[in-house]
Amino acid sequence: MKLDIIPKILEEAVENISQFPGYGEKSAKHFILNLLHMPRGEAFSVLKNLYDVLDKIHPCKECGLYTDKELCDVCSAEDRDKETICVVEESFDAYAIENTGKYKGLYHVLGGRLSPLEGITPDQLNIDSLLQRIEKQPVKEVILATNPTVEGEATATYIYNLLKDKNITVSRIAYGLPFGATLENADDFTIAKALEHKTKF
Amino acid sequence: MKLDIIPKILEEAVENISQFPGYGEKSAKHFILNLLHMPRGEAFSVLKNLYDVLDKIHPCKECGLYTDKELCDVCSAEDRDKETICVVEESFDAYAIENTGKYKGLYHVLGGRLSPLEGITPDQLNIDSLLQRIEKQPVKEVILATNPTVEGEATATYIYNLLKDKNITVSRIAYGLPFGATLENADDFTIAKALEHKTKF
Repeated sequence: MKLDIIPKILEEAVENISQFPGYGEKSAKHFILNLLHMPRGEAFSVLKNLYDVLDKIHPCKECGLYTDKELCDVCSAEDRDKETICVVEESFDAYAIENTGKYKGLYHVLGGRLSPLEGITPDQLNIDSLLQRIEKQPVKEVILATNPTVEGEATATYIYNLLKDKNITVSRIAYGLPFGATLENADDFTIAKALEHKTKF
Repeated sequence: MKLDIIPKILEEAVENISQFPGYGEKSAKHFILNLLHMPRGEAFSVLKNLYDVLDKIHPCKECGLYTDKELCDVCSAEDRDKETICVVEESFDAYAIENTGKYKGLYHVLGGRLSPLEGITPDQLNIDSLLQRIEKQPVKEVILATNPTVEGEATATYIYNLLKDKNITVSRIAYGLPFGATLENADDFTIAKALEHKTKF
Protein backbone atom coordinates (compact mmCIF):
# COMPACT_ATOMS: atom_id res chain seq x y z
CA MET A 1 0.00 0.00 0.00
CA LYS A 2 2.98 2.29 0.69
CA LEU A 3 3.98 4.26 -2.39
CA ASP A 4 7.20 6.00 -3.24
CA ILE A 5 5.37 9.26 -3.82
CA ILE A 6 8.27 11.72 -3.86
CA PRO A 7 9.25 12.52 -7.46
CA LYS A 8 12.81 11.36 -8.26
CA ILE A 9 14.14 14.79 -9.29
CA LEU A 10 12.76 16.34 -6.12
CA GLU A 11 14.42 13.62 -4.02
CA GLU A 12 17.67 14.24 -5.92
CA ALA A 13 17.43 17.99 -5.22
CA VAL A 14 17.05 17.30 -1.48
CA GLU A 15 20.03 14.92 -1.54
CA ASN A 16 22.22 17.39 -3.45
CA ILE A 17 21.60 20.32 -1.16
CA SER A 18 21.65 18.20 2.03
CA GLN A 19 25.29 17.53 1.26
CA PHE A 20 26.31 21.20 1.36
CA PRO A 21 28.49 21.84 4.42
CA GLY A 22 26.28 23.17 7.20
CA TYR A 23 23.13 21.85 5.52
CA GLY A 24 20.99 18.86 6.34
CA GLU A 25 17.80 17.36 4.98
CA LYS A 26 15.65 19.92 6.81
CA SER A 27 17.44 23.00 5.47
CA ALA A 28 17.64 21.47 1.98
CA LYS A 29 13.86 20.94 1.94
CA HIS A 30 13.36 24.48 3.25
CA PHE A 31 15.47 25.91 0.41
CA ILE A 32 13.67 23.88 -2.27
CA LEU A 33 10.22 24.69 -0.91
CA ASN A 34 11.12 28.38 -0.98
CA LEU A 35 11.89 28.05 -4.70
CA LEU A 36 8.74 25.99 -5.40
CA HIS A 37 6.52 28.43 -3.50
CA MET A 38 7.73 31.43 -5.54
CA PRO A 39 6.03 32.44 -8.79
CA ARG A 40 7.83 30.21 -11.34
CA GLY A 41 9.19 33.15 -13.33
CA GLU A 42 10.89 34.60 -10.27
CA ALA A 43 12.25 31.21 -9.21
CA PHE A 44 13.73 30.65 -12.68
CA SER A 45 15.40 34.06 -12.58
CA VAL A 46 16.95 33.26 -9.18
CA LEU A 47 18.45 30.12 -10.75
CA LYS A 48 19.48 32.00 -13.90
CA ASN A 49 21.39 34.48 -11.72
CA LEU A 50 23.10 31.60 -9.86
CA TYR A 51 24.07 30.11 -13.26
CA ASP A 52 25.62 33.46 -14.19
CA VAL A 53 27.49 33.52 -10.88
CA LEU A 54 28.98 30.07 -11.57
CA ASP A 55 29.68 31.04 -15.18
CA LYS A 56 31.35 34.42 -14.60
CA ILE A 57 32.65 34.57 -11.03
CA HIS A 58 36.02 33.02 -10.26
CA PRO A 59 38.88 33.73 -7.87
CA CYS A 60 41.23 36.60 -8.85
CA LYS A 61 44.39 34.90 -10.13
CA GLU A 62 46.48 37.07 -7.84
CA CYS A 63 44.62 37.30 -4.52
CA GLY A 64 41.75 34.80 -4.75
CA LEU A 65 38.99 37.42 -4.31
CA TYR A 66 35.85 36.40 -6.21
CA THR A 67 35.65 38.64 -9.26
CA ASP A 68 34.23 38.68 -12.78
CA LYS A 69 37.52 39.97 -14.23
CA GLU A 70 40.87 38.24 -14.67
CA LEU A 71 42.45 40.47 -12.03
CA CYS A 72 40.14 41.85 -9.32
CA ASP A 73 39.48 45.58 -8.88
CA VAL A 74 41.81 45.76 -5.89
CA CYS A 75 44.78 44.02 -7.54
CA SER A 76 44.38 46.09 -10.71
CA ALA A 77 44.00 49.45 -8.91
CA GLU A 78 46.99 51.79 -9.28
CA ASP A 79 46.60 53.56 -5.97
CA ARG A 80 46.49 50.70 -3.44
CA ASP A 81 49.21 50.17 -0.86
CA LYS A 82 50.95 47.14 -2.33
CA GLU A 83 53.13 46.63 0.75
CA THR A 84 50.22 45.47 2.91
CA ILE A 85 48.20 42.27 2.48
CA CYS A 86 45.09 41.55 4.53
CA VAL A 87 44.41 37.80 4.78
CA VAL A 88 40.74 36.81 5.05
CA GLU A 89 38.85 33.52 5.03
CA GLU A 90 36.32 34.37 2.32
CA SER A 91 35.72 37.05 -0.30
CA PHE A 92 32.71 38.34 1.62
CA ASP A 93 35.05 39.20 4.52
CA ALA A 94 37.12 41.35 2.16
CA TYR A 95 33.98 43.04 0.80
CA ALA A 96 33.03 43.86 4.42
CA ILE A 97 36.46 45.33 5.18
CA GLU A 98 36.38 47.30 1.94
CA ASN A 99 32.99 48.72 2.89
CA THR A 100 34.52 50.46 5.92
CA GLY A 101 36.63 52.56 3.53
CA LYS A 102 39.48 52.35 6.08
CA TYR A 103 41.75 49.89 4.32
CA LYS A 104 43.91 50.70 1.33
CA GLY A 105 46.14 47.64 0.98
CA LEU A 106 45.67 44.37 -0.90
CA TYR A 107 43.75 41.26 0.12
CA HIS A 108 44.45 37.56 0.12
CA VAL A 109 41.53 35.12 0.29
CA LEU A 110 42.23 31.73 1.87
CA GLY A 111 38.95 30.20 0.71
CA GLY A 112 38.13 28.85 4.17
CA ARG A 113 39.80 28.16 7.50
CA LEU A 114 41.61 25.20 9.02
CA SER A 115 39.06 22.82 10.48
CA PRO A 116 40.04 19.32 11.60
CA LEU A 117 36.35 18.56 12.17
CA GLU A 118 35.44 19.35 8.57
CA GLY A 119 38.69 17.83 7.31
CA ILE A 120 40.07 21.14 6.03
CA THR A 121 43.87 21.02 6.02
CA PRO A 122 46.41 23.73 5.05
CA ASP A 123 46.86 22.37 1.51
CA GLN A 124 43.18 23.04 0.81
CA LEU A 125 43.57 26.74 1.56
CA ASN A 126 45.33 29.35 -0.58
CA ILE A 127 48.37 29.51 1.69
CA ASP A 128 51.06 28.56 -0.85
CA SER A 129 49.95 31.37 -3.13
CA LEU A 130 50.24 33.79 -0.18
CA LEU A 131 53.84 32.71 0.41
CA GLN A 132 54.56 33.11 -3.32
CA ARG A 133 53.13 36.63 -3.34
CA ILE A 134 55.33 37.56 -0.40
CA GLU A 135 58.40 36.28 -2.24
CA LYS A 136 57.57 38.22 -5.42
CA GLN A 137 56.21 41.47 -4.04
CA PRO A 138 57.63 44.07 -1.66
CA VAL A 139 55.27 43.12 1.18
CA LYS A 140 56.02 44.79 4.52
CA GLU A 141 52.94 43.83 6.55
CA VAL A 142 50.49 40.92 6.59
CA ILE A 143 47.30 41.50 8.57
CA LEU A 144 45.68 38.23 9.63
CA ALA A 145 41.95 38.98 9.48
CA THR A 146 40.58 35.47 9.81
CA ASN A 147 37.45 35.31 11.95
CA PRO A 148 37.68 35.54 15.76
CA THR A 149 36.68 31.87 16.19
CA VAL A 150 38.62 28.80 17.30
CA GLU A 151 39.21 27.80 13.66
CA GLY A 152 40.01 31.34 12.54
CA GLU A 153 42.49 31.71 15.39
CA ALA A 154 44.16 28.37 14.56
CA THR A 155 44.43 29.44 10.92
CA ALA A 156 46.00 32.78 11.89
CA THR A 157 48.48 31.02 14.17
CA TYR A 158 49.39 28.54 11.44
CA ILE A 159 50.12 31.34 8.96
CA TYR A 160 51.95 33.40 11.58
CA ASN A 161 54.35 30.48 12.12
CA LEU A 162 55.08 30.36 8.38
CA LEU A 163 55.77 34.10 8.24
CA LYS A 164 57.42 34.97 11.54
CA ASP A 165 61.02 34.55 10.30
CA LYS A 166 60.48 36.44 7.05
CA ASN A 167 61.23 39.97 8.21
CA ILE A 168 57.73 41.26 7.67
CA THR A 169 55.30 42.61 10.25
CA VAL A 170 52.53 40.12 10.93
CA SER A 171 49.53 41.56 12.75
CA ARG A 172 46.14 40.23 13.86
CA ILE A 173 42.86 42.17 13.84
CA ALA A 174 41.89 43.27 17.34
CA TYR A 175 39.63 41.36 19.66
CA GLY A 176 37.33 43.46 21.79
CA LEU A 177 33.72 44.28 22.49
CA PRO A 178 31.70 44.89 19.34
CA PHE A 179 29.87 48.21 19.08
CA GLY A 180 26.45 47.93 20.72
CA ALA A 181 27.44 45.03 22.98
CA THR A 182 26.91 44.82 26.73
CA LEU A 183 29.64 43.68 29.12
CA GLU A 184 27.07 41.63 30.99
CA ASN A 185 26.42 39.41 27.98
CA ALA A 186 29.91 39.25 26.52
CA ASP A 187 31.97 36.09 26.97
CA ASP A 188 35.01 35.96 29.28
CA PHE A 189 37.53 35.71 26.46
CA THR A 190 36.24 38.83 24.76
CA ILE A 191 36.16 40.85 28.00
CA ALA A 192 39.69 39.71 28.89
CA LYS A 193 40.95 40.75 25.43
CA ALA A 194 39.11 44.09 25.66
CA LEU A 195 40.89 44.82 28.97
CA GLU A 196 44.27 43.56 27.76
CA HIS A 197 44.18 45.78 24.67
CA LYS A 198 42.67 48.84 26.37
CA THR A 199 43.54 52.14 24.67
CA LYS A 200 44.04 55.65 26.12
CA PHE A 201 40.81 57.63 26.14
CA MET B 1 40.11 54.71 -1.97
CA LYS B 2 37.11 52.52 -1.09
CA LEU B 3 36.10 50.35 -4.04
CA ASP B 4 32.86 48.57 -4.79
CA ILE B 5 34.65 45.26 -5.13
CA ILE B 6 31.74 42.82 -4.99
CA PRO B 7 30.74 41.76 -8.52
CA LYS B 8 27.17 42.87 -9.40
CA ILE B 9 25.83 39.39 -10.20
CA LEU B 10 27.20 38.07 -6.91
CA GLU B 11 25.55 40.93 -5.02
CA GLU B 12 22.30 40.18 -6.87
CA ALA B 13 22.53 36.50 -5.89
CA VAL B 14 22.91 37.46 -2.22
CA GLU B 15 19.94 39.83 -2.46
CA ASN B 16 17.73 37.23 -4.18
CA ILE B 17 18.35 34.48 -1.68
CA SER B 18 18.31 36.82 1.35
CA GLN B 19 14.66 37.43 0.52
CA PHE B 20 13.65 33.78 0.90
CA PRO B 21 11.46 33.38 4.00
CA GLY B 22 13.68 32.25 6.88
CA TYR B 23 16.82 33.45 5.11
CA GLY B 24 18.98 36.48 5.70
CA GLU B 25 22.17 37.87 4.22
CA LYS B 26 24.31 35.45 6.22
CA SER B 27 22.52 32.28 5.14
CA ALA B 28 22.32 33.55 1.54
CA LYS B 29 26.10 34.06 1.45
CA HIS B 30 26.59 30.64 3.02
CA PHE B 31 24.49 29.00 0.29
CA ILE B 32 26.28 30.81 -2.53
CA LEU B 33 29.77 30.10 -1.12
CA ASN B 34 28.84 26.42 -0.93
CA LEU B 35 28.06 26.49 -4.66
CA LEU B 36 31.21 28.47 -5.52
CA HIS B 37 33.43 26.16 -3.45
CA MET B 38 32.21 23.04 -5.27
CA PRO B 39 33.89 21.80 -8.43
CA ARG B 40 32.11 23.84 -11.13
CA GLY B 41 30.75 20.77 -12.92
CA GLU B 42 29.05 19.55 -9.76
CA ALA B 43 27.69 23.01 -8.94
CA PHE B 44 26.20 23.32 -12.44
CA SER B 45 24.54 19.94 -12.08
CA VAL B 46 23.00 20.99 -8.74
CA LEU B 47 21.50 24.01 -10.54
CA LYS B 48 20.45 21.91 -13.55
CA ASN B 49 18.56 19.60 -11.18
CA LEU B 50 16.85 22.60 -9.54
CA TYR B 51 15.86 23.82 -13.02
CA ASP B 52 14.32 20.41 -13.70
CA VAL B 53 12.46 20.59 -10.40
CA LEU B 54 10.96 23.97 -11.34
CA ASP B 55 10.26 22.74 -14.86
CA LYS B 56 8.60 19.42 -14.03
CA ILE B 57 7.31 19.52 -10.45
CA HIS B 58 3.93 21.10 -9.79
CA PRO B 59 1.07 20.53 -7.36
CA CYS B 60 -1.26 17.60 -8.13
CA LYS B 61 -4.43 19.18 -9.52
CA GLU B 62 -6.51 17.16 -7.09
CA CYS B 63 -4.65 17.17 -3.76
CA GLY B 64 -1.79 19.68 -4.15
CA LEU B 65 0.98 17.13 -3.55
CA TYR B 66 4.11 18.02 -5.53
CA THR B 67 4.33 15.58 -8.42
CA ASP B 68 5.75 15.30 -11.93
CA LYS B 69 2.45 13.87 -13.27
CA GLU B 70 -0.90 15.55 -13.80
CA LEU B 71 -2.47 13.50 -11.02
CA CYS B 72 -0.15 12.31 -8.24
CA ASP B 73 0.54 8.64 -7.54
CA VAL B 74 -1.80 8.66 -4.53
CA CYS B 75 -4.78 10.26 -6.30
CA SER B 76 -4.37 7.99 -9.32
CA ALA B 77 -3.97 4.77 -7.29
CA GLU B 78 -6.95 2.40 -7.48
CA ASP B 79 -6.54 0.85 -4.05
CA ARG B 80 -6.42 3.87 -1.73
CA ASP B 81 -9.15 4.57 0.79
CA LYS B 82 -10.92 7.47 -0.90
CA GLU B 83 -13.10 8.16 2.15
CA THR B 84 -10.19 9.49 4.22
CA ILE B 85 -8.20 12.69 3.58
CA CYS B 86 -5.09 13.56 5.56
CA VAL B 87 -4.44 17.32 5.55
CA VAL B 88 -0.77 18.35 5.73
CA GLU B 89 1.08 21.65 5.49
CA GLU B 90 3.63 20.64 2.86
CA SER B 91 4.26 17.78 0.42
CA PHE B 92 7.28 16.66 2.42
CA ASP B 93 4.94 15.98 5.38
CA ALA B 94 2.88 13.66 3.18
CA TYR B 95 6.04 11.90 1.94
CA ALA B 96 6.99 11.34 5.61
CA ILE B 97 3.57 9.90 6.47
CA GLU B 98 3.66 7.70 3.38
CA ASN B 99 7.07 6.37 4.43
CA THR B 100 5.54 4.86 7.56
CA GLY B 101 3.45 2.60 5.33
CA LYS B 102 0.60 2.96 7.85
CA TYR B 103 -1.69 5.27 5.92
CA LYS B 104 -3.85 4.23 3.00
CA GLY B 105 -6.10 7.24 2.45
CA LEU B 106 -5.65 10.36 0.34
CA TYR B 107 -3.76 13.56 1.13
CA HIS B 108 -4.48 17.25 0.88
CA VAL B 109 -1.57 19.70 0.87
CA LEU B 110 -2.31 23.18 2.22
CA GLY B 111 0.96 24.67 0.96
CA GLY B 112 1.79 26.26 4.32
CA ARG B 113 0.13 27.15 7.60
CA LEU B 114 -1.72 30.19 8.91
CA SER B 115 0.79 32.70 10.19
CA PRO B 116 -0.22 36.25 11.06
CA LEU B 117 3.48 37.08 11.57
CA GLU B 118 4.40 36.06 8.02
CA GLY B 119 1.11 37.45 6.66
CA ILE B 120 -0.24 34.04 5.62
CA THR B 121 -4.04 34.13 5.64
CA PRO B 122 -6.56 31.34 4.85
CA ASP B 123 -7.02 32.46 1.23
CA GLN B 124 -3.33 31.78 0.56
CA LEU B 125 -3.70 28.13 1.58
CA ASN B 126 -5.43 25.36 -0.38
CA ILE B 127 -8.47 25.33 1.91
CA ASP B 128 -11.17 26.09 -0.69
CA SER B 129 -10.02 23.14 -2.77
CA LEU B 130 -10.30 20.93 0.33
CA LEU B 131 -13.91 22.02 0.84
CA GLN B 132 -14.64 21.36 -2.85
CA ARG B 133 -13.17 17.86 -2.62
CA ILE B 134 -15.36 17.12 0.39
CA GLU B 135 -18.45 18.25 -1.53
CA LYS B 136 -17.61 16.12 -4.57
CA GLN B 137 -16.23 12.96 -2.98
CA PRO B 138 -17.63 10.50 -0.42
CA VAL B 139 -15.27 11.68 2.35
CA LYS B 140 -16.01 10.24 5.80
CA GLU B 141 -12.93 11.38 7.74
CA VAL B 142 -10.51 14.29 7.58
CA ILE B 143 -7.30 13.85 9.59
CA LEU B 144 -5.70 17.21 10.42
CA ALA B 145 -1.97 16.48 10.32
CA THR B 146 -0.62 20.02 10.39
CA ASN B 147 2.51 20.34 12.52
CA PRO B 148 2.29 20.39 16.34
CA THR B 149 3.25 24.07 16.51
CA VAL B 150 1.29 27.20 17.41
CA GLU B 151 0.69 27.94 13.71
CA GLY B 152 -0.08 24.32 12.85
CA GLU B 153 -2.56 24.13 15.72
CA ALA B 154 -4.25 27.39 14.64
CA THR B 155 -4.52 26.07 11.09
CA ALA B 156 -6.05 22.80 12.30
CA THR B 157 -8.56 24.70 14.46
CA TYR B 158 -9.48 26.97 11.56
CA ILE B 159 -10.19 24.00 9.28
CA TYR B 160 -12.01 22.12 12.05
CA ASN B 161 -14.42 25.04 12.39
CA LEU B 162 -15.16 24.90 8.65
CA LEU B 163 -15.82 21.16 8.78
CA LYS B 164 -17.48 20.52 12.13
CA ASP B 165 -21.08 20.82 10.85
CA LYS B 166 -20.53 18.72 7.74
CA ASN B 167 -21.25 15.27 9.17
CA ILE B 168 -17.73 13.96 8.71
CA THR B 169 -15.28 12.80 11.36
CA VAL B 170 -12.55 15.37 11.87
CA SER B 171 -9.53 14.07 13.77
CA ARG B 172 -6.17 15.48 14.79
CA ILE B 173 -2.85 13.58 14.91
CA ALA B 174 -1.88 12.73 18.48
CA TYR B 175 0.37 14.84 20.66
CA GLY B 176 2.69 12.89 22.93
CA LEU B 177 6.30 12.16 23.71
CA PRO B 178 8.31 11.37 20.60
CA PHE B 179 10.21 8.08 20.56
CA GLY B 180 13.63 8.51 22.22
CA ALA B 181 12.58 11.55 24.26
CA THR B 182 13.10 12.02 27.98
CA LEU B 183 10.36 13.27 30.30
CA GLU B 184 12.90 15.48 32.01
CA ASN B 185 13.50 17.50 28.86
CA ALA B 186 10.00 17.52 27.40
CA ASP B 187 7.90 20.67 27.63
CA ASP B 188 4.87 20.90 29.92
CA PHE B 189 2.33 20.93 27.10
CA THR B 190 3.68 17.71 25.61
CA ILE B 191 3.79 15.93 28.97
CA ALA B 192 0.25 17.07 29.78
CA LYS B 193 -0.98 15.77 26.41
CA ALA B 194 0.90 12.48 26.86
CA LEU B 195 -0.86 11.95 30.21
CA GLU B 196 -4.24 13.06 28.94
CA HIS B 197 -4.11 10.63 26.00
CA LYS B 198 -2.55 7.70 27.89
CA THR B 199 -3.37 4.27 26.46
CA LYS B 200 -3.74 0.87 28.14
CA PHE B 201 -0.48 -1.07 28.31
